[in-house]
Amino acid sequence: MDEYRTGAFTLPGEAGYEELTLQMAKKWGADVIRDSDGTKLSPEIVEAGYKIYSTICIIREHNAFAAAHPDAQQQTFLSSDPCLAVADALTIAPLDGYFDEQFQLNDSPDALAFWQVWDRTENKPVPADQWTYEKGAVSVRGCVPYHRYTVSFLAWRVWEEINMYNHTTNHWSSEHLRQLDPRHPLAWEYLKQWLKDWCRDNPDTNVVRLTSLFYNFVWIFGSDLRRRTRFVDWASYDFTVSPAALRAFEKEYGYTLTAEDFINKGKFQATHRPPTAHKRDYMDFIQRFVAEKGRELVKIIHDAGKQAYVFYDDSWVGMEPYGQYFASIGFDGLIKCVFSGFECRLCAGAEVPVHELRFHPYLFPVGLGGLPTFAAGGHPEKDAVAYWLHVRRALARQPVDRIGLGGYLHLTIGQDKFNDAIEEMGIAFRRLKALHACGAPAALPITVAVLHAWGALRSWTLSGHFHETDGNILIHINEALSGLPVKVKFVSFEDVKNGALADVDVLVNAGRAGDAWSGGDAWKDPALVSEITRFVCEGGSLIGAGEPSAVPGGDTRFALAHVFGVDQDDGAYACHQPWPVERSEAPFFVAEQALGVTPGVRLTGPDTKVLCEKNGVPALTLHPFGKGRAAYFGGFAYSPEAARMLLELLLYLTGTDGRAAGLTDTPAAECAWFPESHTLVVMNDQDAPGDINVNLPEKTLRVHLAANEMVFLND
Amino acid sequence: MDEYRTGAFTLPGEAGYEELTLQMAKKWGADVIRDSDGTKLSPEIVEAGYKIYSTICIIREHNAFAAAHPDAQQQTFLSSDPCLAVADALTIAPLDGYFDEQFQLNDSPDALAFWQVWDRTENKPVPADQWTYEKGAVSVRGCVPYHRYTVSFLAWRVWEEINMYNHTTNHWSSEHLRQLDPRHPLAWEYLKQWLKDWCRDNPDTNVVRLTSLFYNFVWIFGSDLRRRTRFVDWASYDFTVSPAALRAFEKEYGYTLTAEDFINKGKFQATHRPPTAHKRDYMDFIQRFVAEKGRELVKIIHDAGKQAYVFYDDSWVGMEPYGQYFASIGFDGLIKCVFSGFECRLCAGAEVPVHELRFHPYLFPVGLGGLPTFAAGGHPEKDAVAYWLHVRRALARQPVDRIGLGGYLHLTIGQDKFNDAIEEMGIAFRRLKALHACGAPAALPITVAVLHAWGALRSWTLSGHFHETDGNILIHINEALSGLPVKVKFVSFEDVKNGALADVDVLVNAGRAGDAWSGGDAWKDPALVSEITRFVCEGGSLIGAGEPSAVPGGDTRFALAHVFGVDQDDGAYACHQPWPVERSEAPFFVAEQALGVTPGVRLTGPDTKVLCEKNGVPALTLHPFGKGRAAYFGGFAYSPEAARMLLELLLYLTGTDGRAAGLTDTPAAECAWFPESHTLVVMNDQDAPGDINVNLPEKTLRVHLAANEMVFLND
Repeated sequence: MDEYRTGAFTLPGEAGYEELTLQMAKKWGADVIRDSDGTKLSPEIVEAGYKIYSTICIIREHNAFAAAHPDAQQQTFLSSDPCLAVADALTIAPLDGYFDEQFQLNDSPDALAFWQVWDRTENKPVPADQWTYEKGAVSVRGCVPYHRYTVSFLAWRVWEEINMYNHTTNHWSSEHLRQLDPRHPLAWEYLKQWLKDWCRDNPDTNVVRLTSLFYNFVWIFGSDLRRRTRFVDWASYDFTVSPAALRAFEKEYGYTLTAEDFINKGKFQATHRPPTAHKRDYMDFIQRFVAEKGRELVKIIHDAGKQAYVFYDDSWVGMEPYGQYFASIGFDGLIKCVFSGFECRLCAGAEVPVHELRFHPYLFPVGLGGLPTFAAGGHPEKDAVAYWLHVRRALARQPVDRIGLGGYLHLTIGQDKFNDAIEEMGIAFRRLKALHACGAPAALPITVAVLHAWGALRSWTLSGHFHETDGNILIHINEALSGLPVKVKFVSFEDVKNGALADVDVLVNAGRAGDAWSGGDAWKDPALVSEITRFVCEGGSLIGAGEPSAVPGGDTRFALAHVFGVDQDDGAYACHQPWPVERSEAPFFVAEQALGVTPGVRLTGPDTKVLCEKNGVPALTLHPFGKGRAAYFGGFAYSPEAARMLLELLLYLTGTDGRAAGLTDTPAAECAWFPESHTLVVMNDQDAPGDINVNLPEKTLRVHLAANEMVFLND
Repeated sequence: MDEYRTGAFTLPGEAGYEELTLQMAKKWGADVIRDSDGTKLSPEIVEAGYKIYSTICIIREHNAFAAAHPDAQQQTFLSSDPCLAVADALTIAPLDGYFDEQFQLNDSPDALAFWQVWDRTENKPVPADQWTYEKGAVSVRGCVPYHRYTVSFLAWRVWEEINMYNHTTNHWSSEHLRQLDPRHPLAWEYLKQWLKDWCRDNPDTNVVRLTSLFYNFVWIFGSDLRRRTRFVDWASYDFTVSPAALRAFEKEYGYTLTAEDFINKGKFQATHRPPTAHKRDYMDFIQRFVAEKGRELVKIIHDAGKQAYVFYDDSWVGMEPYGQYFASIGFDGLIKCVFSGFECRLCAGAEVPVHELRFHPYLFPVGLGGLPTFAAGGHPEKDAVAYWLHVRRALARQPVDRIGLGGYLHLTIGQDKFNDAIEEMGIAFRRLKALHACGAPAALPITVAVLHAWGALRSWTLSGHFHETDGNILIHINEALSGLPVKVKFVSFEDVKNGALADVDVLVNAGRAGDAWSGGDAWKDPALVSEITRFVCEGGSLIGAGEPSAVPGGDTRFALAHVFGVDQDDGAYACHQPWPVERSEAPFFVAEQALGVTPGVRLTGPDTKVLCEKNGVPALTLHPFGKGRAAYFGGFAYSPEAARMLLELLLYLTGTDGRAAGLTDTPAAECAWFPESHTLVVMNDQDAPGDINVNLPEKTLRVHLAANEMVFLND
């Protein structure tokens, strides 16, 4: 076992805790020591013979420059809250309701040119000659009484959002950090020189760990503490905007983006919503800009003889690992913090030399939702194991190169259970990695394609972590898929029309009516609907969940209702009697607790078999269609049992014998079979011990596992 | 009390039970004896000195004429179920899936001219030169593979629907009755002569009780017994159609209605959905036709020295009592069968000399949903009392002239509890009627306007009885309003734009997004939104329930979200944090059990007070707006307590002292104060006895009531 005790582990060091740092590095088998936001490494640590990662947030920590060049700060479009006109004139203070420590009006002439006033009752912009701006307020003339008006405006973002979060959540009291826009020519020259100087001044650093690049995900604070966060989207592009960006866009694309392209009736353009054509153009424009500037930074780092890793969080906007320009940036490694299996797969599949996971919990007093982790009342070892159960099943399918932790190392003092758990995880991770190195685990001949508006760009993730998006049914399905022995790809509606179904066995569409995951107006295209109809008719399989293919305007609410054998009544079925919902015997394991229903779902005919219903609403159905089959989930909440149900559904739909990849007889236990190594990995996801039989093509193995245990059986 | 023992009561007589008929007539104080569908009156009954009603369904029971003139039968448009093209040709048998004892294809040349074939995938009609009809099947050429096609066609309705229902539900085995279309010239001449002959042959009949007029509500049966009823709508106009009607319409309106105006993507035009402009034209066209023909029948009846009452059920289509042509028909009386208070108000408010209620249960072995009533296991007295509790509170507000029963009188044999209950109800009814005759009950100075697409045309009812429409929140509110001491009117969106709010204190909008009750696209009109905004801003009150004013395309899901202080997240609020839902103390009685929630409802700001929430979703809120106030119900299920809550909300919104009309201190008890008679009517709606205090402006009365008791207290 000693061969698995060291290597491929990044430890957060901490100045002042030099002995602890070296002791923990030994216990956890670290080969790398890093600093974290808020910690430093001392010479004793840096010179202890470990490889060193140094964390840099390139656009932050330049307050002096920002003070001297306030126009080099980043911006965003915001909309005032609607104001009611009761006469023909109205005055609006645009920033009312926003956090004044985050935003300041950008009322410079080049910004004002992009401001708009909207009559939201009429859904029309107010002509520019009907309003004026003076001293923080917009005066509108010629209002229609009892209409509501908003002002769309540009604002400077004068507090870097991650720093703002740490201050407001963790009561930091240091100076508010500002952030620079790399599109500002002076700022860009300054940042490049700063990085060159930094590299020169930090000769012991092997890897510059960029806490992403330039633009943070969108996080808009309000003034009212009862609703501090007004808007937060891990994948929106609003914080990339500036008059300079808009003018550069216009020059390249030949049309002008307006404030409304961002404001979108006050709702912004959240990632969960289908993108407009303008938004797609703008994203491509920003992605190319980010890649171009990123390449310059990487070159500086390489020229200094160091490697450049990027941490995929915070200021990551425009550098999606599955975007088409990511590989061109030339990063040497991608680091992803993970709570979940889908995040491991996201990292593992990216086109970059080194894939590294930063495990949770972060070494910080409080964690998710402000709950204690390493503070009194916390159970960091329980958190660690809970996340590990999600992570290990994904690691059994696809390897990464490294793991690690982050935060304040001194918080591990006295946390022996946590420290032991991490040690064990390190060993298990290295064993899995070694197995993968000998040959891939057996996989079933099933290719699953997840279909949504974003396609490959948003492979695995929707935006952010599981707990930030768990109201979306698709993330539960992605999480289940992340540990299954099948091939998974992510395709867009355009991909499907361009032939992407050629190598697909099972197509999945899961979302809510009108969102980016279900697809919204994409389903108005008969070419899309008939291509999927053909696919299933000729023998393919389709899985829908929630409100798949839902779009108004057709003769059914689900554009693929005829394939699913279910449709949704949004009121249009008024007076139409439904087919009775009667349960049929299920041809595979059904995880009842994982299932839910979508209101209004009804059968389209008597051929739809109901495997589970709740209060008379179908929760899981099967429908034969041509030579193919379709299944529908009313709700799907991830659990080990839910993942097993999904696997058995895939086997049923495709007529596949699952034993080729190993199949446990216990829903909450999984396995991975590594034929080259003759090794069977069995994972007990239950909180209780169990005797588990594993069926392989030619034999059945029986093994006893402790609660949550993972074992490696050599054949 | 003897003064209230007789009169204003219609008894169903039955030949063969002459003694029983006279005995029950005495017990219940009948002054009229009627026949029913399936019963006859014998000479002994007819000559016993009572006034006689005779039931006639004018278009039915003419099978010989229908056999000789099959083209005089009634019709409808139907759509085939969608058929998938897998190549470029497709054959569709239009009637597949329909009940072949109800329908036959009308493939006559003048009908075929109105048939259509639709590509439902593309949502386009197929050009007529791409399809042909032969021997019951439509062949389509030039199909797009994997598109779905439907045939819209005309079908003869060869089984009168009420007769069909009785056969299939109650196992009748007599000849299937057909029905004639009064638009057919020969049929019309025949029917008029038949009625003349009938009047001549039935000299003892005083009142011809027309079981409505010509066109039944829409009831479409399928061939599969698992879903016998495909579509049923108590207020749709589909069964009025024919090529002759379509041609007459075209001549008058200058444009042609197509099959799709009726088929509407296979969903028909249910009354719960907002009407199209074409449908409104067509309804007016039919209403004028029905009134014109109805007038001719009434004249025949009057010329024979008889009166014409109309029973508002079954073949009533086109003669809505609140339609603008109803009064012109000249009926002497309107008879409405009632389960509920709103039905009493519907009848009581119609412009006709005599208003009569037919109580439930009907004297029939089985009742609602096929449950036993007078059959073994039934409890007719319990049913009667349950309906009476709804009816009496409406009767306390607005009187009708008569009550009665229907069905097989012999079923009352041995049902002493039922017979006594009806006797008591008769006495109570006559006392209430006498009170009203002395002077109206005290009412509060509150005018409530219920706002929906139909306005006054669908006053009180949505379509059909309570239990047929109880999935609609509005019917619960209408039922509550039917017994409250306030003025109620029903207004359309056009009415509001034309100034209908001038005399309104509280406006109510209650429905589901996109339905006729909420309003759907009507809310896209800024003039409507700003008029209601003005109304509340200047001091009016607004109550929303369910998904009021919901429409896609605006900056909020509820067009009046700014007034309500709540909006609904249909996905568009993705990434927008909600305001916290925290309960405030309620300024009035809140009937928690009657409340529900609508998924996705969220507060628009911190000024919205939450009086009740369920699982974090607001169930009842209040919001100040300008000088007015708005309230929102997520759900509202009728109960006596719910009605009391609504009353207290109305008092709160309008700042009214409810004691002017009498106010009990018990939520499930109501009262009506008749100042002219100095009489207080107190109704205990609880299933238990109780001591009830009634607060009047200048005093408080205390009274003990038995379970469900109603008392009359003389001041």
